Amino acid sequence: MNALVYGGDGTPVLEKRPVPQILAATDAIVKMVKGTICGTDLHILKGDLSTCTPGRILGHEGTGIVHAIGANVTTFKAGDRVIISCITSCLSCEFCRRGLLSHCVHGGWILGHRIDGTQAEYVRIPHADGSLHHLISGASEASQTMCSDVLPTSYECGVLSGRVGPGSSVAIVGGGPIGLGILLTAQLFSPSMLIMITRDQNRLKTAATLGATHCITFGSTAVEEVMALTGGRGVDTVIEAAGVPGTFELCQELVAVGGTIANVGVHGCKVDLHLDKLWHKNITIATSLVDTSSTPLLLKLMDAGKIQNDMLITHTFSFKDMAEAYSTFESAAKHKAIKVIIDFVAENGVH
Amino acid sequence: MNALVYGGDGTPVLEKRPVPQILAATDAIVKMVKGTICGTDLHILKGDLSTCTPGRILGHEGTGIVHAIGANVTTFKAGDRVIISCITSCLSCEFCRRGLLSHCVHGGWILGHRIDGTQAEYVRIPHADGSLHHLISGASEASQTMCSDVLPTSYECGVLSGRVGPGSSVAIVGGGPIGLGILLTAQLFSPSMLIMITRDQNRLKTAATLGATHCITFGSTAVEEVMALTGGRGVDTVIEAAGVPGTFELCQELVAVGGTIANVGVHGCKVDLHLDKLWHKNITIATSLVDTSSTPLLLKLMDAGKIQNDMLITHTFSFKDMAEAYSTFESAAKHKAIKVIIDFVAENGVH
Amino acid sequence: MNALVYGGDGTPVLEKRPVPQILAATDAIVKMVKGTICGTDLHILKGDLSTCTPGRILGHEGTGIVHAIGANVTTFKAGDRVIISCITSCLSCEFCRRGLLSHCVHGGWILGHRIDGTQAEYVRIPHADGSLHHLISGASEASQTMCSDVLPTSYECGVLSGRVGPGSSVAIVGGGPIGLGILLTAQLFSPSMLIMITRDQNRLKTAATLGATHCITFGSTAVEEVMALTGGRGVDTVIEAAGVPGTFELCQELVAVGGTIANVGVHGCKVDLHLDKLWHKNITIATSLVDTSSTPLLLKLMDAGKIQNDMLITHTFSFKDMAEAYSTFESAAKHKAIKVIIDFVAENGVH
Amino acid sequence: MNALVYGGDGTPVLEKRPVPQILAATDAIVKMVKGTICGTDLHILKGDLSTCTPGRILGHEGTGIVHAIGANVTTFKAGDRVIISCITSCLSCEFCRRGLLSHCVHGGWILGHRIDGTQAEYVRIPHADGSLHHLISGASEASQTMCSDVLPTSYECGVLSGRVGPGSSVAIVGGGPIGLGILLTAQLFSPSMLIMITRDQNRLKTAATLGATHCITFGSTAVEEVMALTGGRGVDTVIEAAGVPGTFELCQELVAVGGTIANVGVHGCKVDLHLDKLWHKNITIATSLVDTSSTPLLLKLMDAGKIQNDMLITHTFSFKDMAEAYSTFESAAKHKAIKVIIDFVAENGVH
Repeated sequence: MNALVYGGDGTPVLEKRPVPQILAATDAIVKMVKGTICGTDLHILKGDLSTCTPGRILGHEGTGIVHAIGANVTTFKAGDRVIISCITSCLSCEFCRRGLLSHCVHGGWILGHRIDGTQAEYVRIPHADGSLHHLISGASEASQTMCSDVLPTSYECGVLSGRVGPGSSVAIVGGGPIGLGILLTAQLFSPSMLIMITRDQNRLKTAATLGATHCITFGSTAVEEVMALTGGRGVDTVIEAAGVPGTFELCQELVAVGGTIANVGVHGCKVDLHLDKLWHKNITIATSLVDTSSTPLLLKLMDAGKIQNDMLITHTFSFKDMAEAYSTFESAAKHKAIKVIIDFVAENGVH
Repeated sequence: MNALVYGGDGTPVLEKRPVPQILAATDAIVKMVKGTICGTDLHILKGDLSTCTPGRILGHEGTGIVHAIGANVTTFKAGDRVIISCITSCLSCEFCRRGLLSHCVHGGWILGHRIDGTQAEYVRIPHADGSLHHLISGASEASQTMCSDVLPTSYECGVLSGRVGPGSSVAIVGGGPIGLGILLTAQLFSPSMLIMITRDQNRLKTAATLGATHCITFGSTAVEEVMALTGGRGVDTVIEAAGVPGTFELCQELVAVGGTIANVGVHGCKVDLHLDKLWHKNITIATSLVDTSSTPLLLKLMDAGKIQNDMLITHTFSFKDMAEAYSTFESAAKHKAIKVIIDFVAENGVH
Repeated sequence: MNALVYGGDGTPVLEKRPVPQILAATDAIVKMVKGTICGTDLHILKGDLSTCTPGRILGHEGTGIVHAIGANVTTFKAGDRVIISCITSCLSCEFCRRGLLSHCVHGGWILGHRIDGTQAEYVRIPHADGSLHHLISGASEASQTMCSDVLPTSYECGVLSGRVGPGSSVAIVGGGPIGLGILLTAQLFSPSMLIMITRDQNRLKTAATLGATHCITFGSTAVEEVMALTGGRGVDTVIEAAGVPGTFELCQELVAVGGTIANVGVHGCKVDLHLDKLWHKNITIATSLVDTSSTPLLLKLMDAGKIQNDMLITHTFSFKDMAEAYSTFESAAKHKAIKVIIDFVAENGVH
Repeated sequence: MNALVYGGDGTPVLEKRPVPQILAATDAIVKMVKGTICGTDLHILKGDLSTCTPGRILGHEGTGIVHAIGANVTTFKAGDRVIISCITSCLSCEFCRRGLLSHCVHGGWILGHRIDGTQAEYVRIPHADGSLHHLISGASEASQTMCSDVLPTSYECGVLSGRVGPGSSVAIVGGGPIGLGILLTAQLFSPSMLIMITRDQNRLKTAATLGATHCITFGSTAVEEVMALTGGRGVDTVIEAAGVPGTFELCQELVAVGGTIANVGVHGCKVDLHLDKLWHKNITIATSLVDTSSTPLLLKLMDAGKIQNDMLITHTFSFKDMAEAYSTFESAAKHKAIKVIIDFVAENGVH
């Protein structure tokens, strides 16, 4: 089969690989239908993740058709149309039982990282019962690829960890796919103020159409603008969705007394924490890797028309054009790209 | 009356001052019976708090007898024996209604800070209905002075913010009065492991008698020792009760996946936050100034014999010997001091 | 002044009464602008509430202008335009501090019940700081009368006690003003299914326009219809908003394993609880009198356009036509009435 | 093997049965070491449970040694010493993922009910990974049989559902093994008042030694006695641990405004719910079948010496003397019995 592989330098390599086989009774083999590219894939290519070694097939998102199952898979059968969760979970280890699927001792984030991933014609999914979801009929398959990672990450790590509630004020720092996913899912709780802060003017425009009540350009006046909107108090929830020191710094300046900073961004270095200013402000800072335990709920909400995320998908490529897909996603601002969809089926006419 | 005043340099000054008068209908004047000294009083003397100006009568803790009340005080009357809360709260502003009494727009921490405090023969207590508590009969008056600040701070900012629960593992970094108060009140929730980490060997001994399951000397091997105790996982709750970068650094190394760091220490500078290591560990960091909303509960628990804090009180001085009280408390390790009690009544025989 | 009084039989009596005076330093006198009638007023007229004695001025809802304040009212001044909360709260008693304003030992529901109420030209409001709210500019004054009782009752006793959440299924049993208020405020949490069950076909039509996803006629097939919608599981949240044994019975048949029944209805007799069927279903039943602690939040949401309740107001009468207002509200189905507004100002041209 | 079977009338029958075999890859066969009898076993014998048909091997509690495992059991191996949970859980169905293991679609309470149980020399445990726990070394094997059902039921359905907290007041109605288990585990949260109410004077004496602060005889003066203790307010948490209308009636009379009734008892008929008195008291009623999700926590607490439940075990019998064990447990008051331990090993000398 064709597979996109991390070769050790900045560019992904298209290689021929054998179709994966069932290795454990809890495995499933999934034939890919739709995929997408994550910012984390770019980090891997740049060599930022020492835990991912050259030769690894990339990708942890996508939808497909179950091709084969191990003897002990009970929830899925060959032919089922499924969403692949970015988190692999056995559901029975100590962490899974505590709800921390992200830290499953037999899984966690391993796809396209510690084991071969979804940017290939077939993928092996360990612990399939805990790591796949049935496609729903009430939303497009492309929009359901967002349930692999983008939407559960936005909802769990941003909205829930950020304790967004009716009438609260919320600022999102970072307008990438996750920032916009947070914007969409925060509205499930009816905040009264939903401020998007990012540099990219195109993303600010998109944010306005997706429900942001205020759009602010990231920069030296952002604090002042938010304080003007909030009577000098700051916001109840600030969500960091960029992963650099400067954005985390801004979050600390924006958070109100009694408020919450939810960190969603992936950070590559330490940051300053201004405890001298924050020790008495009764704030909470939460970090999280997604558990994907909200995926069934998000699918139910998509089915009920309560989450409409088609606007996050700006481009579609055939799997054979993955190089172009990557270059488009890497230069997102230039191409006005948010999420790019990879179509595995178009090229071989199976679907 | 006699009053202990912040004079602008490191030593408190004993001065004659007029007895305070009722200024607002919600005020009470309290004749002091017992007082104590807080680490924050030492910070004020050192000039660390720019919000406290020379001439201020020190102190935000103590018990006394209501001497006079304003026309609108309904819960207390002259002659009532009371505990003075370190937090003044109107109970009706937006913050008070949200439970954030610490940020009351008409109060908060003002005693011995922005208005004259309790280290004097009489003190004016604004918003008396929200800022005093009736003494209980089931505990000594000295031990109830700990309900002004030490115990509610320990319980709210340490134990509750730290989400201590049955069977959880807890590490307390810092063995001062607050660290030991956390040790006492954490046991209300029956954690299975309760580790005290501090430098002072005398405090470690005290911790062992107060219920610590493990006592570890703060230093280069602390992380290794905790990891050995927890199978390499770290602890569910780490409570910072010292307020310096090095202790906050240790907290980050000790916290387990899914765990909580409760910051109780008062910090004078920024610290490093290792988001590169913590972003995916699903941890929570909480900062808090005490709301003292738990004080009625803590008094009920003291009355029921569930909190026994007499051991926190190591020394007692007459008010006329305040200079000695301060020097003893400042050199706590040398004197094996934890909390020192000031006895206002002994010297003039009123009590 | 003119006042509407409970005379001891079924019809309210219009009487001349003296304008109320400040009796305590925390009182305010409010000149009424808008009022409304509650189902509870009808219960009083019928003699159902032994705690309300003849001679009492009726009414616990409305808006007005502050006419005079006691010496200790700090949040309001003469001339302020205000919403009168149906719950009077001192904010400082033990119950108020625990958030149970409904059970304030100096207040609770007393207006138009134990003290004279709002269906008069002027009303005395005890504990004004805790019992009034400033009118907002972002919604009509008539729609803000719904913040006296209807909306906080719907939100607190129905939606919050019922634990409505994103993606959950909700059934509301009872289509009166409170049932419809629950329908409106439940949407703040984005449930995926929101079923209205009532007898009145006109109310079902209104429910459909206000956001109900399914409308079911109360009767023998209701259980079957809900089970068909939920794959036989029942609903996560059932809210009782009628107050009779038959509706509570239905709630027990509709609730899913792990679900919640929130009782909002005022019951006049005991009901059957089928513990033989429910003991192992892991359900929660919550009863509540409104605390009105959500009123500031609801006003913020109205200001942000997140709650649009104008459709609940179907009729408007001058205060001089109160008899007609009562008869219209009593025969709500016949008049297609939901809430009737009383206009105190129109008749005397002051406003 | 020998097995104790529900024969269809009131007395259990000792029969020869084949040793159970692995039927599914997730099964384990456990050789029993210790067992016990539950009140529910008595209900089955009386024919109260139509879902349990004659011929069924009784019992859902006990400890043993893993004899054989299916191909897909990963957490246990032959020779492991284990506690058998009364709840069988697949961990992956919708209910298990929501934490409602009690309602697992592939399990729940099936042992000794819908499939053969533990009162036999060997038992087949479906979904072994989710339904067994490793024995710990820090407590006796007999005391760990209480982790099959008694302690998790007490803790989850009584203490957690009842929201017991530091300083709260708690009344337990019913002094059986579960009532006493609630008494033990409620103390993990340091309530200030812990009242045991039961008829059996022997049980009241046991309760006093196990930590009850007050012991009251169930009867006509119980309400008055509790009101005298609580200043007329009632208690914050009332836990029903008997399962008859009269005890649930008492719970409603005892619960304070804002309080909780946790129903743990198994009810055979409907009860009266006095909504006319409770609708405005802001109370919560919770029903629950145990999920056993707290078992790892309870074992950790037993290991740390925080739960000492040996006193619940009053009698020990060999498996061959099961008839006597049953008759002792059935006439518990006469024999001053609480829990009886069945020793499977003694009779054949294997252990």
